[in-house]
Amino acid sequence: MRRVKAIVSYDGTHFSGYQVQPSARTVQGEMGKALGKLHKKDYWNVTGSGRTDAGVHSLGQTVHFDTPLSLPEDKWPRALNSLMPEDIIVKSAEYTEDSFHARYNTAGKEYKYRVNTSEVKNVFQRNYVYHLPGRLDAEAMRTAALQLEGTHDFTSFSSPKTSVEDKVRTIFSATVEQEGPEFVFRYIGSGFLYQMVRILTGTLLNAGRGKTDPEEVSGIIKGRDRLLAGPTVPGHGLYLAEVFYEKSSLEKRVAEVQKKMQ
Amino acid sequence: MRRVKAIVSYDGTHFSGYQVQPSARTVQGEMGKALGKLHKKDYWNVTGSGRTDAGVHSLGQTVHFDTPLSLPEDKWPRALNSLMPEDIIVKSAEYTEDSFHARYNTAGKEYKYRVNTSEVKNVFQRNYVYHLPGRLDAEAMRTAALQLEGTHDFTSFSSPKTSVEDKVRTIFSATVEQEGPEFVFRYIGSGFLYQMVRILTGTLLNAGRGKTDPEEVSGIIKGRDRLLAGPTVPGHGLYLAEVFYEKSSLEKRVAEVQKKMQ
Repeated sequence: MRRVKAIVSYDGTHFSGYQVQPSARTVQGEMGKALGKLHKKDYWNVTGSGRTDAGVHSLGQTVHFDTPLSLPEDKWPRALNSLMPEDIIVKSAEYTEDSFHARYNTAGKEYKYRVNTSEVKNVFQRNYVYHLPGRLDAEAMRTAALQLEGTHDFTSFSSPKTSVEDKVRTIFSATVEQEGPEFVFRYIGSGFLYQMVRILTGTLLNAGRGKTDPEEVSGIIKGRDRLLAGPTVPGHGLYLAEVFYEKSSLEKRVAEVQKKMQ
Repeated sequence: MRRVKAIVSYDGTHFSGYQVQPSARTVQGEMGKALGKLHKKDYWNVTGSGRTDAGVHSLGQTVHFDTPLSLPEDKWPRALNSLMPEDIIVKSAEYTEDSFHARYNTAGKEYKYRVNTSEVKNVFQRNYVYHLPGRLDAEAMRTAALQLEGTHDFTSFSSPKTSVEDKVRTIFSATVEQEGPEFVFRYIGSGFLYQMVRILTGTLLNAGRGKTDPEEVSGIIKGRDRLLAGPTVPGHGLYLAEVFYEKSSLEKRVAEVQKKMQ
């Protein structure tokens, strides 16, 4: 058996999230079935870096699975894509050490969230960008975002449904890019709690709309109370952009994003 | 009764084309049902500038309908959008003269066709951009496109199923834009025959891939034989971009596109 690491992009629109469920269409479930066909089984186990919710998209979800097949490395994407539904695409694959684990070895993750503020909704963005017509104050949102950076207890920004005990995480970079009517919120962190990125974004949007004083974000963090933070924005604007396994590549990416924002 | 002119955008993915059919989901059919609800009827007649095929998208389809309702002009888009399925959006609407006809009064139309040449398919583009991996020679395609401009008999570029007798049309502008791995083919013309834009694009792509000598396009036009031209490329890369009713706005747009290409 050899272990394969693969980078997977998916359109979350028609999935009930990443994690396999008995009677719902999920990304892991569909990948497990496709790998099953390849291995002449009903299902083949595959492990992702973490879950994504219903409607959430991926540009760089990373998974691993073990296989007795000895396909050349560069043949894996095509072999898998020919069996996968059209809303999942394996972008690349490589053989990796047996000790590699898609979930336990992560050094960090990058998420982005897209918002469009145009008056008229764009029909092609309905499943891909959160439509929030009206003015957003980019500077206020940047002021608010800066306060998220660092190591904090993010209880205020996690769903009460979270079962994890330790809510301390590190955000290396939280930035707000604007291009015309579209805003992109980008977060690079050690890890993120359940619905955390969507609540962070809801809070920054409140600052952008003048509903929250941007200087108050530090206080919201310190309060450790979900009720202090903004709303959970819809899943369809959210993208898991990249999963990092090397501290060096994570640091390189953080530097790249920070440089772009200057 | 007053006549309303409206500009409509739709995602063609889940439609069996524009034109109403007894037992298929169509753009005209869904609009007719939404207008019906507003007028307390099962169906309300609506006339478009022309058909689009299954999978083909619109950024600027233009339609007209007559109504006894006296809604303020700026309330029409919201009233219609609240009744319309989410893959159709009315971008704007205005009261117009009774003599206005969305189909018979057109001065011209603009279509664009998107092609992505990346090796790896983008999962978010699967219904919106034709994926054709490999190298395309932009200069060859521009040379070929230039020969399409002018007034010609476009028999070679129309489906044999076309029932129209007169196949003479004028193409004011046929351009090829490149941005990284994506190519956009843009056509502004007096009108287009059934599947003409998709066959024009298939022919330009053949020139881009070295399958057709770009200088041969004039000969293909003169030959008046569908077998001489390239393949009919898939509908999902095609967009009806704009419908022009004033010669002046058409000429302005042609000048704009030509200037951009210099």
